[in-house]
Amino acid sequence: MRMDDTICALSTAPGMGAIAVIRVSGTQTFPIISRVFKPFKKGLNIEEIAPYKSVYGAIMDRDKLVDEVLLQLFRGPKSYTGEDVIEIACHGSVYIQEQILNLLLKEGIRMADPGEYTLRAYINGKMDLSQAEAVADLIASENKASHQVALQHMKGGISKEIRALRSELIDFVSLIELELDFAEEDVEFADRTKFKELLQRIQQVLQSLISSFDTGNAIKNGVPVAIVGAPNAGKSTLLNALLKEERAIVTEVEGTTRDAIEDEIHIDGISYRFIDTAGIRETEDQVERIGIQRTFEKVAQSDLVLFLFAADRLQTTRGIELLKEEYEQIKARTGDRNFLFLLTKCELLGDLKPEVKAELETFKPLYISAKEDTHLEELHQQIAQFYRWGDLAASQSIVTNVRHLNALQASLIQVQKVEEGLESGLPGDLLSIDIRSALAELGSIIGEVDVDKDILGNIFGKFCIGK
Amino acid sequence: MRMDDTICALSTAPGMGAIAVIRVSGTQTFPIISRVFKPFKKGLNIEEIAPYKSVYGAIMDRDKLVDEVLLQLFRGPKSYTGEDVIEIACHGSVYIQEQILNLLLKEGIRMADPGEYTLRAYINGKMDLSQAEAVADLIASENKASHQVALQHMKGGISKEIRALRSELIDFVSLIELELDFAEEDVEFADRTKFKELLQRIQQVLQSLISSFDTGNAIKNGVPVAIVGAPNAGKSTLLNALLKEERAIVTEVEGTTRDAIEDEIHIDGISYRFIDTAGIRETEDQVERIGIQRTFEKVAQSDLVLFLFAADRLQTTRGIELLKEEYEQIKARTGDRNFLFLLTKCELLGDLKPEVKAELETFKPLYISAKEDTHLEELHQQIAQFYRWGDLAASQSIVTNVRHLNALQASLIQVQKVEEGLESGLPGDLLSIDIRSALAELGSIIGEVDVDKDILGNIFGKFCIGK
Repeated sequence: MRMDDTICALSTAPGMGAIAVIRVSGTQTFPIISRVFKPFKKGLNIEEIAPYKSVYGAIMDRDKLVDEVLLQLFRGPKSYTGEDVIEIACHGSVYIQEQILNLLLKEGIRMADPGEYTLRAYINGKMDLSQAEAVADLIASENKASHQVALQHMKGGISKEIRALRSELIDFVSLIELELDFAEEDVEFADRTKFKELLQRIQQVLQSLISSFDTGNAIKNGVPVAIVGAPNAGKSTLLNALLKEERAIVTEVEGTTRDAIEDEIHIDGISYRFIDTAGIRETEDQVERIGIQRTFEKVAQSDLVLFLFAADRLQTTRGIELLKEEYEQIKARTGDRNFLFLLTKCELLGDLKPEVKAELETFKPLYISAKEDTHLEELHQQIAQFYRWGDLAASQSIVTNVRHLNALQASLIQVQKVEEGLESGLPGDLLSIDIRSALAELGSIIGEVDVDKDILGNIFGKFCIGK
Repeated sequence: MRMDDTICALSTAPGMGAIAVIRVSGTQTFPIISRVFKPFKKGLNIEEIAPYKSVYGAIMDRDKLVDEVLLQLFRGPKSYTGEDVIEIACHGSVYIQEQILNLLLKEGIRMADPGEYTLRAYINGKMDLSQAEAVADLIASENKASHQVALQHMKGGISKEIRALRSELIDFVSLIELELDFAEEDVEFADRTKFKELLQRIQQVLQSLISSFDTGNAIKNGVPVAIVGAPNAGKSTLLNALLKEERAIVTEVEGTTRDAIEDEIHIDGISYRFIDTAGIRETEDQVERIGIQRTFEKVAQSDLVLFLFAADRLQTTRGIELLKEEYEQIKARTGDRNFLFLLTKCELLGDLKPEVKAELETFKPLYISAKEDTHLEELHQQIAQFYRWGDLAASQSIVTNVRHLNALQASLIQVQKVEEGLESGLPGDLLSIDIRSALAELGSIIGEVDVDKDILGNIFGKFCIGK
């Protein structure tokens, strides 16, 4: 990772637009742009212009006009990367974008790697690592929840909590290491009771962050949903009813295009993705019994299982037996996944024998009639309760990043180890080693310890080019 | 067309990027943005900031953070549209783009129609109509030639010529109309000899502009090329050889994507599009004689005809007869289209009888062996000579716009009518009417006469949104 050269890239979306923005960052930004930019105002020197100003002029390839552009000038450290930055707003033809980038490359500027602007911002101390990661999440955000959580992270939500805990832990490790210097005098600078309290508080916070990941992951990646049930349980009817509602509420602002995603609905800002819906439609009419391999595969891929049973089957002699059988078979495979039992085609329920009705109630069904839109709203609410994030987002940070989750889990193990050591009277030098491991794990989240180059490469390699 | 309200649109390419730019223009730009933008610097009021400055801050939907953005402020008339303009550079997620646009709409800003920013720039006198049209051409430019010509137009290339001619013509019509006021005194303010000279000069310029349209159209829309010849004439081999070269020289700058166009090559900045190449590949091996309907259809759609004849056929007894027959058949259909005769598979030519060789030479063939890349470079040059634009572009304007072509042709007819009137001693009042018609036609190109609303709608409706 070279950081001393000057980089450029298209920062706006690829393709044709009214305008496009090319971003240049690095020590040679101003000298190089001075060579290819001719301001319309005679005698103007961009090196002398106040930062945050815009200047009109022409990009020239020797004496050939490439485009008339608007430059926006930023002087490091008061810029996104912390370096000297110029943003070139040019006409949005792909040809012009390429011509300007080619000219910059010819002048010795290098194409930026994906995420390199944000990497430089991190290296130059403009943001910590978790905030840098949130920038990528923000750009990729496709719904209300992921947008809100990414914004919170970018503003340092999780960083603040980690930094505060780390700082308290550093105070303690300093005191414990101080004791080592006075080992012969057998003094205790660090208050063991307070230290134990701190360790427990840290474990609570870590555990709460770790457990927020289920929701965080749902927010970031959506929830895979399996709709399962015997043939004619109304799987495709339910799916179509949910998707029809979704299509009806999708709004588009002119000038932006978002690909409509098949088989996905949004509830309260979270995306729910139906697994293998092609299969549902295809096999709906096929004669197949529940319990086949495919159903279990779907359950295995899912995070939420909707089990459907058609109400009219309860009119048959063995109806309630079959329900019990299917229910238990599915439930056994569901494990600790979220699970809802929907009694479908309720318009065909009719009168049930009292003992059948009583037994049915023990399964706590949600009575659904997709054809008549009965209780679809309630189904939405029941699904949403599993992934409620509004309250969470207001009161605490939500972890959405697998790297953070792993570091938090590793930190928790280390902190527990420290506590065990404390309880069993481990000598201070060994205790200090365990605390330092915990500090390193916590520090890796915000990038306050030396972060491995591979990890940095991995984080920033996922960015889009130009950020 | 309402011009008194405030408009907004995404100005960068649609889709996800590192950043996106939303442009707002109109009288209410500053008051409305003040309501939804909270600068990071406390106490800052964007109404009071110097123009051309950038300001960091947050876009807020009441108390909810939508995004952290960079505003660029422009005060009319010193802006693209001539109105107050603010450009909002936000994080490039499609979700955020939509959220900000939705917020602006809620605040009473209207979505801009395609090209409405440039329309407003035209209405506010920031550019003339032909320059405004060049903006759209510039954004759509896909190669060197269309880019250069659009830039020249945008800088007023054709406008300047038209404006100069019009202004001389206006001087004359004024003098002629002045004579009418002194009709009884029978004076001649307008020098008839000089007037005639002017009319001839105008006709020359108009004719030269009109005849530049062939090249201009080739530059803007590409040249449709028909490759014709009997089965096994080597049509697909030639096509593949040309396309293979093209693929090899296509370079991509990272961060921009250009759709590779099948069956298109570029020579000296002009695109050549091969017609019905699927057909070529399919029918290559079929037994069919030249002269079928399909060949003639291809010729009819083309602007350049490449007629191929395989060299090995000249070894047969009737070979030269067949060549003559096919050549004449194709040539008869070619009309005044550009035409090249390629003798293909030259590696199979062998020794020819002197009289056959002599007759062959009368057809001026270009000897080609696509398999061995023989004379492909020369073929490029021969094709390029038909559409040479480099010298043209330097010395005079090139017309690329059908609307301009039509107006120029109509102007020419009017000017010719004026000259005829002058020759036949038409009275001044009738002469003046004809001159005014010519002035109106010329004026319509640059939009200096009242341009019909439908025409404006037609011109600006073709723009992308956000420009």
